[in-house]
Amino acid sequence: MNYIDLNCDLGESYGVFKIGNDKEILKHISSANIACGYHAGDHNVMMETIQMAKKHKVNIGAHPGLPDILGFGRREMNVAPREIYNLTLYQIGALNAFAVAEGVKLVHVKPHGAMYNMAAKSRLIADAIAQAVADFDSSLILFGLAGSELIHAGKEKGLVTVQEVFADRTYQPDGTLTSRNENNSIIHDLKFAAQRVIRMIKEKKVTATDGTEVAITADTVCIHGDEPAALDFILELKNALENENITIRKIWSER
Amino acid sequence: MNYIDLNCDLGESYGVFKIGNDKEILKHISSANIACGYHAGDHNVMMETIQMAKKHKVNIGAHPGLPDILGFGRREMNVAPREIYNLTLYQIGALNAFAVAEGVKLVHVKPHGAMYNMAAKSRLIADAIAQAVADFDSSLILFGLAGSELIHAGKEKGLVTVQEVFADRTYQPDGTLTSRNENNSIIHDLKFAAQRVIRMIKEKKVTATDGTEVAITADTVCIHGDEPAALDFILELKNALENENITIRKIWSER
Amino acid sequence: MNYIDLNCDLGESYGVFKIGNDKEILKHISSANIACGYHAGDHNVMMETIQMAKKHKVNIGAHPGLPDILGFGRREMNVAPREIYNLTLYQIGALNAFAVAEGVKLVHVKPHGAMYNMAAKSRLIADAIAQAVADFDSSLILFGLAGSELIHAGKEKGLVTVQEVFADRTYQPDGTLTSRNENNSIIHDLKFAAQRVIRMIKEKKVTATDGTEVAITADTVCIHGDEPAALDFILELKNALENENITIRKIWSER
Amino acid sequence: MNYIDLNCDLGESYGVFKIGNDKEILKHISSANIACGYHAGDHNVMMETIQMAKKHKVNIGAHPGLPDILGFGRREMNVAPREIYNLTLYQIGALNAFAVAEGVKLVHVKPHGAMYNMAAKSRLIADAIAQAVADFDSSLILFGLAGSELIHAGKEKGLVTVQEVFADRTYQPDGTLTSRNENNSIIHDLKFAAQRVIRMIKEKKVTATDGTEVAITADTVCIHGDEPAALDFILELKNALENENITIRKIWSER
Repeated sequence: MNYIDLNCDLGESYGVFKIGNDKEILKHISSANIACGYHAGDHNVMMETIQMAKKHKVNIGAHPGLPDILGFGRREMNVAPREIYNLTLYQIGALNAFAVAEGVKLVHVKPHGAMYNMAAKSRLIADAIAQAVADFDSSLILFGLAGSELIHAGKEKGLVTVQEVFADRTYQPDGTLTSRNENNSIIHDLKFAAQRVIRMIKEKKVTATDGTEVAITADTVCIHGDEPAALDFILELKNALENENITIRKIWSER
Repeated sequence: MNYIDLNCDLGESYGVFKIGNDKEILKHISSANIACGYHAGDHNVMMETIQMAKKHKVNIGAHPGLPDILGFGRREMNVAPREIYNLTLYQIGALNAFAVAEGVKLVHVKPHGAMYNMAAKSRLIADAIAQAVADFDSSLILFGLAGSELIHAGKEKGLVTVQEVFADRTYQPDGTLTSRNENNSIIHDLKFAAQRVIRMIKEKKVTATDGTEVAITADTVCIHGDEPAALDFILELKNALENENITIRKIWSER
Repeated sequence: MNYIDLNCDLGESYGVFKIGNDKEILKHISSANIACGYHAGDHNVMMETIQMAKKHKVNIGAHPGLPDILGFGRREMNVAPREIYNLTLYQIGALNAFAVAEGVKLVHVKPHGAMYNMAAKSRLIADAIAQAVADFDSSLILFGLAGSELIHAGKEKGLVTVQEVFADRTYQPDGTLTSRNENNSIIHDLKFAAQRVIRMIKEKKVTATDGTEVAITADTVCIHGDEPAALDFILELKNALENENITIRKIWSER
Repeated sequence: MNYIDLNCDLGESYGVFKIGNDKEILKHISSANIACGYHAGDHNVMMETIQMAKKHKVNIGAHPGLPDILGFGRREMNVAPREIYNLTLYQIGALNAFAVAEGVKLVHVKPHGAMYNMAAKSRLIADAIAQAVADFDSSLILFGLAGSELIHAGKEKGLVTVQEVFADRTYQPDGTLTSRNENNSIIHDLKFAAQRVIRMIKEKKVTATDGTEVAITADTVCIHGDEPAALDFILELKNALENENITIRKIWSER
C-alpha cells in the first residue's frame, strides 16, 4: 500500500491583510507549514493557525522565510549563510512558543519561497538551514524539494528528510522546477496534475518539459493554498488518490 | 548578609546600527535582558549576545517590547491584551531558540520600555504578559517594577517575581517612577544614586520627590547600558555595594 | 441645488496582500484618498492607484497614517506632534512624486485611522498635520471630521477645509463618532444610512444616539471601500442623492 | 583651474540608532546625499539633515536605497526594474517634501549601496532609476559610478550626470570597483588615497589592481561618513587639493 502526505502553506495573513482559506484547507491536508512573521504571518495569525491546526489534528511545521513582508519572501536576497542560520532559528523558536503554549509539538520545518529555492540550489544555504533545525531540535523533520541540496544537507546533519513534489508545476530534466518566468511552468488542468502526482507516487517518475523521464521521490505533495482553485484541486487529488488506494498520512505516523 | 542582582538591557543593536557597550558591561552584571527583534536586536545580534552572556556566565533573560523599531519600543501603543500575550510569546520563543542552540537556559523575562510601563499600571496588560511567560515555561522568573501590577500579576500566575529598582530615576509617593518628561526625573550624581540603591536594599525605603518615605523591595537594580556613563556608574555602584557587604548575585542561585 | 463629494480610502493593498475593490469603487466616487506606505499601500500600489484615479478623473488625495503596517494605522501611538508633522510631510511628498510622474495634481489630504481620530480631538496633533500640509502646498485641501479640531487647525493655517461625515456610523451629542467598541456604533441598514446622509446635507443635522439633534456640515461623505457591502451602499446612496437632486461633485470644482 | 565636488552619504541614523558625524562632515563637503527611509534615515532624521545641510549651504540630494533597514540597503535583492522605478520615485518625493517645507531645492540623486552597484552593472536597473529621476524633475542631476551603466542611462534620458570616484577603494581594469570581499579592495593609507584622487582629477587616470592604467572621469569624490577616519581623510584630502589648486565646488554652480 502507498502513502502520501499533503502539505499546505498556511497562516500567511498579516494584520488586516487576509490571505488564503485556511479553515477549509485544514480539513483536507495532513501537514500545515505555518508562516513565522518574516515573509507573512504575524503573532496573532500564528496563534490562530496553531489553534486551528491543533483542532484538525494536522501536523504543525515552521515555514521560515526571508525578512521581506513587502515581497512575501519571494525575492532572492543576498543573505550570508550565517544569517540564514540565525533567521531560521529565530522563526522556528517563535512558532514553537505558540505550540508550547497550546500543548502541541512542532513536527517539521519547510523553508518558504526564495529561501526554499536558494536552499534547493546552494549547499551553503541548505547547510545553514539544516544546521539550525538540528541545533534547535534534531527530531524535527526537514521538508525540501525532492532531490535538492536541502535534502542532502538534512540527511548529512542526521535529520529525517521529506521529499516534496509539486502537482501544479512542470519539471526540468535535472529534476528542478521550471521557473515561474517560463510559459509552461504551471499546470492548470486539475485532472492532469492529479494524475502526475499519482505517477510520481506509484512509479517514482515525472515527465520533464522536454520529454525526459525523471526519477523522483514523492513523500509529500505541496498544495498552494492561496490560489482560487486550491480547494477544487484538493478534492480532485483526494479522489484520484482514493481510486489508487493511496492513503493520505501524516509524516510522523511512520516514526 | 544582603544580596542584589544587577541587570542590564543588552543586545539592542540592529543591523549596522550599534548601541551600547555590551562586552564591557557583561563583565559586571549578573542578569542580561536581551532584546528580541521587536524594538531592537535582530537575529544576528541576538545570537552574538547570547554567546557573550554565556561566556560571562551571566543570567539570560528575554526583553520583549512593542513592535516599533523606529520608536525603540518607547512609545505607548494601543495594543489589546490578547495581542500583548501573543507578541510576548513570540519574542520569548525567538530568543529561546538561540539559547537552545547554544545550550543555555532562559532564566527570566523583563518587558521593555512602553510595554514595561503599561504593565506596571494596567493589570490587563500585566496579566497578558505574566500568562504568556507562565504558558511558555512556568519556571521563568518575571522581572517588574517594584510594587507594580506586573509583580502582582506574576505572583497570581504562580511565577517567581523579581522586584526591580532604578538607581538613576526619582520616585513618586505612590512608588511609581517620575515621568521622564519631568525635570527632576533623572539622578545624575553617581555617588548619590549609588547611596539610594544601598538604602533601598538595606532599609527597603526610598525618598520620593515630595519627601515622602516610600517602602520598596529591591531584588534587582537596572543599569542603563546605552548611556555614556553606564560603566562609570557600575564601578561606583559595585564599590558602594562592596563597602556595605552587599553581594551581587544572580537571581536563580537562590532557587 | 445641493452638492456633495464622495470620498473613499483606496490603494490599501500591500505587496501580495490585496484589500478593497478599487477598480469598481473608482467609477462612483469623486475623491480618492490614497494610502502612502505607512499603514498600507506600497510604492507599486501607489503608482497603480494614481493611474487608475487619473483614468477615472477622480480627485487624488494623500491619506497619511501612523507607521504601523501590522496594525493598519488603527492603533493610537504616543507620537509627538513634531514627529506627526514630519511623517505627514514624508507621506504627502512620497505620493506627490507619483502624481508628478503621471502629470496629475494632488488635491487634498485626509489623515487615516488613529491619526484621523487623534487629530479630531487633539489640537496639537491637528496643528502638526495642518502645518505640514500648508508647508508643502497651501493650495491642498484638508479633509477632517466635521466640526473637529483638525478642521479648526486647517482654517487657522489658511487651508481650505472639507468637513467629512460618515453614513454608516452613529454620532454622539458632541458631534464625535460613537466609538467602534460600542454596540450601536455602526449602522447596517443601507437605506437608513443613505437617508441620514440626505438629512445631513439638506438640513445640516444628525440625530445622536441619545436623540439629541446635532448641527453638522457635510461637504464630503466617507465610503468604506474595504467592506463587502461597499458597492451596494454606494449604489443605494447615489440613488437617494439623485432622488433629492443632490449632485456628486469634486471639491475643487468650486474653487 | 580644476574643480571637484565632495559628496557624503548623510542622514543615515534611524530612530535612537545614531550613525555618522553629520554635523562635522557638513562643514567640509559640497554635496549631501540624504537617506530617504528605505535603508536608513527616518522622517525626523531627514528633516534634521535637510535643515543642517541648508545651514551649511551644501547641495542636497536624495539617496534612495532598497527597502531593507536590517541590511542597510547593502544586500542585493531581486527587485524588478518597474519596482526600482517606483521605489526611487517614492523616496525622491519623500525627501523633496522636507526640502519644499524648508525652502530649499533638491539638486541631485545618488542611489545607495546595493542599488548603486546594481545600477552600475544592469542597464535595466539603471534605466529605471534614471527614468524615475527624469519623470520627477528633469533638472535633477544623477550621480553614478564613473563610466557605469547608470551614467549612460542618465545621459540617454537627458539628465545632467556626475561621475563619481572613490578615494579609498581600488579599481579593476574595467573601471569597476574591486569587490569588498577581496583583500585589496580598501585603501587605508590616507595620503596615498588623496594622491590617487589628485591624479584622477588632473590626469583622468587611475591605476587598477593589476597595474593597468584606467581612464576615469572624476566629477565628484565620495567620502564615507560612517567610518571613524572620515574626518581625518577629509582634512588630508582638502589639504592635498589645495596644494594642487583644485577648488571644491558644488556641481550646480556650473549650470
